[in-house]
Amino acid sequence: MKKYAIILAAGKGTRMKTELPKCAYPLLKKPMIAYIVENLYKSTVIDELITVVGHKKQIIKDILNSRVTYAHQEEQLGTGHAVMMCKDLIKEPGYTIILPGDMPLIDELVIKDAIQFHENENNDLTVVSTKLNDPSGYGRIIRVKKKLQAIVEEKDATEKQQEINEVNTGIYIVDNELLFGSLDKISNNNAQNEYYLTDIVKVLKKDNKKISTYLLKKSFKAMGINDLYNLSQAESILRHEINKKFMRSGVAMINPDTITIGDNVVIEQNVTISPNTYITGNSIIKKNAKVGPSTEIHNSVIGEDVNIKHSLIYNSEVKANSTVGPFAHLRDGAIIGENNRIGNFVEIKKSSTGKTFKASHLAYIGDAEIGNDVNFGCGSITVNYDGVNKYKTQIGDGVFVGCNANLIAPIIIDDNSTIAAGSTLDKNVPKDTLAIARSYQVNKENYFKNGKRINIKKK
Amino acid sequence: MKKYAIILAAGKGTRMKTELPKCAYPLLKKPMIAYIVENLYKSTVIDELITVVGHKKQIIKDILNSRVTYAHQEEQLGTGHAVMMCKDLIKEPGYTIILPGDMPLIDELVIKDAIQFHENENNDLTVVSTKLNDPSGYGRIIRVKKKLQAIVEEKDATEKQQEINEVNTGIYIVDNELLFGSLDKISNNNAQNEYYLTDIVKVLKKDNKKISTYLLKKSFKAMGINDLYNLSQAESILRHEINKKFMRSGVAMINPDTITIGDNVVIEQNVTISPNTYITGNSIIKKNAKVGPSTEIHNSVIGEDVNIKHSLIYNSEVKANSTVGPFAHLRDGAIIGENNRIGNFVEIKKSSTGKTFKASHLAYIGDAEIGNDVNFGCGSITVNYDGVNKYKTQIGDGVFVGCNANLIAPIIIDDNSTIAAGSTLDKNVPKDTLAIARSYQVNKENYFKNGKRINIKKK
Amino acid sequence: MKKYAIILAAGKGTRMKTELPKCAYPLLKKPMIAYIVENLYKSTVIDELITVVGHKKQIIKDILNSRVTYAHQEEQLGTGHAVMMCKDLIKEPGYTIILPGDMPLIDELVIKDAIQFHENENNDLTVVSTKLNDPSGYGRIIRVKKKLQAIVEEKDATEKQQEINEVNTGIYIVDNELLFGSLDKISNNNAQNEYYLTDIVKVLKKDNKKISTYLLKKSFKAMGINDLYNLSQAESILRHEINKKFMRSGVAMINPDTITIGDNVVIEQNVTISPNTYITGNSIIKKNAKVGPSTEIHNSVIGEDVNIKHSLIYNSEVKANSTVGPFAHLRDGAIIGENNRIGNFVEIKKSSTGKTFKASHLAYIGDAEIGNDVNFGCGSITVNYDGVNKYKTQIGDGVFVGCNANLIAPIIIDDNSTIAAGSTLDKNVPKDTLAIARSYQVNKENYFKNGKRINIKKK
Repeated sequence: MKKYAIILAAGKGTRMKTELPKCAYPLLKKPMIAYIVENLYKSTVIDELITVVGHKKQIIKDILNSRVTYAHQEEQLGTGHAVMMCKDLIKEPGYTIILPGDMPLIDELVIKDAIQFHENENNDLTVVSTKLNDPSGYGRIIRVKKKLQAIVEEKDATEKQQEINEVNTGIYIVDNELLFGSLDKISNNNAQNEYYLTDIVKVLKKDNKKISTYLLKKSFKAMGINDLYNLSQAESILRHEINKKFMRSGVAMINPDTITIGDNVVIEQNVTISPNTYITGNSIIKKNAKVGPSTEIHNSVIGEDVNIKHSLIYNSEVKANSTVGPFAHLRDGAIIGENNRIGNFVEIKKSSTGKTFKASHLAYIGDAEIGNDVNFGCGSITVNYDGVNKYKTQIGDGVFVGCNANLIAPIIIDDNSTIAAGSTLDKNVPKDTLAIARSYQVNKENYFKNGKRINIKKK
Repeated sequence: MKKYAIILAAGKGTRMKTELPKCAYPLLKKPMIAYIVENLYKSTVIDELITVVGHKKQIIKDILNSRVTYAHQEEQLGTGHAVMMCKDLIKEPGYTIILPGDMPLIDELVIKDAIQFHENENNDLTVVSTKLNDPSGYGRIIRVKKKLQAIVEEKDATEKQQEINEVNTGIYIVDNELLFGSLDKISNNNAQNEYYLTDIVKVLKKDNKKISTYLLKKSFKAMGINDLYNLSQAESILRHEINKKFMRSGVAMINPDTITIGDNVVIEQNVTISPNTYITGNSIIKKNAKVGPSTEIHNSVIGEDVNIKHSLIYNSEVKANSTVGPFAHLRDGAIIGENNRIGNFVEIKKSSTGKTFKASHLAYIGDAEIGNDVNFGCGSITVNYDGVNKYKTQIGDGVFVGCNANLIAPIIIDDNSTIAAGSTLDKNVPKDTLAIARSYQVNKENYFKNGKRINIKKK
Repeated sequence: MKKYAIILAAGKGTRMKTELPKCAYPLLKKPMIAYIVENLYKSTVIDELITVVGHKKQIIKDILNSRVTYAHQEEQLGTGHAVMMCKDLIKEPGYTIILPGDMPLIDELVIKDAIQFHENENNDLTVVSTKLNDPSGYGRIIRVKKKLQAIVEEKDATEKQQEINEVNTGIYIVDNELLFGSLDKISNNNAQNEYYLTDIVKVLKKDNKKISTYLLKKSFKAMGINDLYNLSQAESILRHEINKKFMRSGVAMINPDTITIGDNVVIEQNVTISPNTYITGNSIIKKNAKVGPSTEIHNSVIGEDVNIKHSLIYNSEVKANSTVGPFAHLRDGAIIGENNRIGNFVEIKKSSTGKTFKASHLAYIGDAEIGNDVNFGCGSITVNYDGVNKYKTQIGDGVFVGCNANLIAPIIIDDNSTIAAGSTLDKNVPKDTLAIARSYQVNKENYFKNGKRINIKKK
């Protein structure tokens, strides 16, 4: 017996008013559909995942890659029609869970529990229902003697039926053979000329199949996303859940409502996150680190006991015991060594630094390899670009680069050498050498007379 | 028949504890009273706007300019007295809507709808009422057989009347002739020796005039501002409404509670706003732009597909496809061309740049005109100030400015010229020219001995 | 009669999952236990404070210093046992208020009022109770004819008793002699083998002592902190109370939910705080200042009419009428004079500036003493570090430092002198002198040919 999942992701999502197909739209920088696929994987109860794609399908495929098999729905003729497109992919006996692609809060617990229920009940069809304070707009669950009798759409519901607050979430678990058998019997003879997946309930009911409902207690998990305001509501729930989970596990957050953390971020114990901080992607924040305030970290690894404030770190790594910021910018594979101090107004890109490196202020380091115990002076720059190409800078151990120096790459500054402040270097510097390139100081007296400075600018 | 509006804005607002007169106090950087005036204009149903000013009246006048006519209330003798001051300005037959100047959430829909009601009912006086969970402190609407009988102030209300939760908002629509006729009959014979506008209800009731109430369903719209905490509550409502409106129209917001957007900002479809972002004034954010996190934009135009992060943009423009930040500062009429890259720790003021301009790091550009395809190196500076005056820098097309260069203005750097890194220039640079002003590099070997650097500083 | 307070702070707080002992954990950067001790002092009704320490006791002692006397609980054998450890310190007749060290929201009003109640009622023991919507987990207050009969722990409560929503907060006021007398009679004969302080209620009840409850109406004030999520909930309440207090006193806050202000901060009237701002420690913000957005201030004094945006200020002072930021960093005792302008990408540490000093962009000033009317050019640097030691820079009045200059410390730049842009200085500059250290500009024409630049980099 094989267990399939079908994710419905062919729709456009017109009310989103954006250019992406709805299920590709990001929630905390991760596409909605990636949540569902990841949660299906985490549930460990599904053998094969099928995603029905249609509108701008390549975008969905680029997100999910080979994590799923694809079914194509060229014309969008309803949810029933979408599932029909999977017929050739579901050949083995078993059952299938069908999920809308715009329900990112359905987590692995719900999936596991609903499937367990389906098996325990020996159901032919399980309809996942939930109870809403305001059920308007949803299909109501009609019961006779507690048993599911029918699902009645809002527009077809009597006044009394409209008062029912148990609704259909649009998630089903159904026997494979019965699924496609019943889909063959539904029609598009309705207002929108669409094949509705819901109609299989009637068909299977008629055939006296065993149908019951799994009641999802936390109804917010079945929140479907229709527009960007809905998305922000789902995001709010998700953010609070993520933050609460971290706080419960020993991460301190100051003003957590201003802290935005993505679903795949890992944060270890005894970390403190200060206000207005934003951490996303596959970032890892290790033990005892302090991050924020006003810091953004994306796809980066922050080592133990690191301290980062008012900074932006993208696709980079900061090793243990280093401090970064305020107002520092690490990007594109910057690898910051242990015990470094990266201070204010410093940018480091595509470079690596050794231990106890310091660039405390106003510096740009690009395309550089830097050794241990180096001091990179205030205002100093790796001149890595000539308008056409980028070149490398190599700095050995124990080098002292004075302030406002220019190192014109490609250049090698060897161990224990010293660069005098204000020097522009275009030649390599051997070991133990002082390199200097500057003019002598001249003091011209009586330059200020009668309360005025004599103008030194050209005429 | 002429339609007037009177806005009561003469009060001090002692409980605000600030230096501005209350109605001038800003809500999301726009004065409270400007909301009311703008919404009266938007309603398109008013012919003439009169604002009653008194305390620090010049501040109110500087805000509203010629958008309204002014009546002066030199002494503050009550709301009835304030309206009396408008008598000479309301000469034609018709009616007048009277609004407190501290109700910034009264929008054009309320104004339009209440006036429509007044006309449909053929009322002599319409009192705008609303229902509150906690009506304490407000005048209660007393009805007999559903009809308005009286408005009873809190202190005069019987215990049973105090249970009434329908209250007077302080907004009235009233026939012009009856308004001033009834004001002539009210007295200041009360605890505060003030003329209360509310008293016209009694007078007109006695004269058997047609009076009814317009019930404002969304009571929060009638929130009056008494102190800065109230103001923050009104702001919270306004912010959520503004953000929701944008999200519903195709603007994505990540953690919208941390995003603060002013009332007059325009944001086009498919824009993404990241957390901790603050956009105010008459800013326009065009299609597909990405703004934030931690960004402030005021009175600026952000072009299509522009990407801005961790930056401050004031009174400036960024044209299409450019990127700004992190940690960039554009101000005072910076005009950034298309396809520019303005990187970290770059300040640009009162300058314009051509297409594909790059200032990627650590630069200051002030009072400059810059052509197309220019690269402005890291650490380079337009030296525009001699301690007394500011001077202009002109840079042609295709110029390459090396790193840590000083361009002492006034200076002209002509097309396709090159400035060597580390150069300080005080003369113009002709076309196609390399300008260089630096010393040769000298390498002094054996400068590092026995694990120590020889000191190069002066003794 | 002497009044004692015992604060129970010996516990580890395992569920916090952090390295600090629970009561030392910070809430808005101040340790939880410091709130209780400060509030006991503010109440002015306690003669002597005793803190029971145990787990990592030195950390607690370093926080409270000599503000309290310490009792030591080497083994943690329950709250009753903890109080027993205070026996030798409470020798005089009187009463003692006993408080858990993890209830930071118990303020001086509660302390004063509960003690007043204890005295008025002539109680032997006062139990502080409160009412909770969800009382589960708490000891229930059992009353017979309105009088306290017993405190029944959750696990011992009958179903009917579990419905009682009045609970024991864990705060007691008790006669000294009766306290230790009753503690002698309690046992650790229970599931956890601990001595429970609650058990004194039974003992004193049996002895017919006068016991009653003080009902704390604002139950949130008795919130105990068990894990970091609880802590964030307490913080949320505290933050809102702090912000509301300031708004009511004439401080304007834009989007106050994003503004995080510590308990000991002082903010004067007519100050405006913009979004995403974080102010902590003993900071003082004086009249008419404008702070934020995206600003952090810690332990600093901000003068009247100062304007600060997008900046970080630590342990520093900014005098009246100055502007700071965006993206400025003041630290370690920077003293900024009146009418200064500290602009973007400027760092100032351990330095003082006179009146009307300007460092408008891209500068580092460390270990400097600067006079009045000085202009410090863009990109200029006090070169204060040679890799081993730090040196001082002295700048007199009326000095003009051009752009991208290096002042190699120790150095004295005397009054009214001028430093030419691009100069690196290693000698003192006398009064009225122009100091220059740069090369002449050479223009090499025809450097750009056939659409290409000739390469000036070394081969």
